[in-house]
Amino acid sequence: MSLAIWLTGLSSAGKTTIAELVCAGLRQRGLKVEWLDGDAVRRLLCRGLGFTKEDRDENIRRIGFVAELLTRNGIFTVVSAISPYRETREEVRRRVGAFLEVYVNAPLEVCERRDVKGIYRRVRAGEAAYVTGVDDPYEPPLKPEVECRTDLEAPDESAARVLRAVDLWLAEPAGPTA
Amino acid sequence: MSLAIWLTGLSSAGKTTIAELVCAGLRQRGLKVEWLDGDAVRRLLCRGLGFTKEDRDENIRRIGFVAELLTRNGIFTVVSAISPYRETREEVRRRVGAFLEVYVNAPLEVCERRDVKGIYRRVRAGEAAYVTGVDDPYEPPLKPEVECRTDLEAPDESAARVLRAVDLWLAEPAGPTA
Repeated sequence: MSLAIWLTGLSSAGKTTIAELVCAGLRQRGLKVEWLDGDAVRRLLCRGLGFTKEDRDENIRRIGFVAELLTRNGIFTVVSAISPYRETREEVRRRVGAFLEVYVNAPLEVCERRDVKGIYRRVRAGEAAYVTGVDDPYEPPLKPEVECRTDLEAPDESAARVLRAVDLWLAEPAGPTA
Repeated sequence: MSLAIWLTGLSSAGKTTIAELVCAGLRQRGLKVEWLDGDAVRRLLCRGLGFTKEDRDENIRRIGFVAELLTRNGIFTVVSAISPYRETREEVRRRVGAFLEVYVNAPLEVCERRDVKGIYRRVRAGEAAYVTGVDDPYEPPLKPEVECRTDLEAPDESAARVLRAVDLWLAEPAGPTA
């Protein structure tokens, strides 16, 4: 068995950066790894889905289905996707079983300053809508296995925190997240 | 590396039956196996997709994406899906790499007689449309790695034929299908 490591958080909170570092750390440990990034997956798995709650949930369910297939075959699966709805994340957790929820947390104003994809600028200019945290909801995890405050710590510190949780799980796979 | 074993053919041609037997045979060989069945996957991965050429192609591309993720991680992936369009199957073959195309072939009249899902009865009664082989195209493979004439041979004979091809590939994974 292996673990699904699910990074949730606002756009520009740092999910992709942390995911890359976590994947590298998992490979260093000799583990098989796949990374499902929300944006990449939208093109391949979820073409045509929009940003309503229904479509966002369907997007997350599909990623969850693929994560389930991979993890039950011993592949560590890192997911980086906004995944704004708590209940949908919990649904995926129940399906996948061994699930490590990582809350990639930075205040909205920090994310807006980074604005890697220019999405905040566009919504403020009235050129975009349904932007999570601005005019679309984000429900933070209540009890994430790991929380990374990316406004207060560097990406490698955040990744190290995630990898420590993985190491604990590897030492005792029947633990709380199993 | 592992192999994607792709069963294509009309509804009621015998894809599901052969897929089950092939999965059992692969597991007996100690291999990791996942089975992606077209109908099951439509519910989980492809909800909302219809039966136009565009939607059928999207369905097959998504299955192909998942098959690619699985096979590159050493999991033998059996797909049973009508997958009526030749060019789309070839596109998946190029993506996946190690691809064994199995043409599950029975004449339409034999499939109609079996009619496991009642789909042929419904289209003949005018209650259904876009049924592959009746009022929607099926493009048979030109050079499948394996052809199973399920009107002429029993399911276990068909499965044995597929498993022989797998054994040949296992003996020489850099062979023609790699």
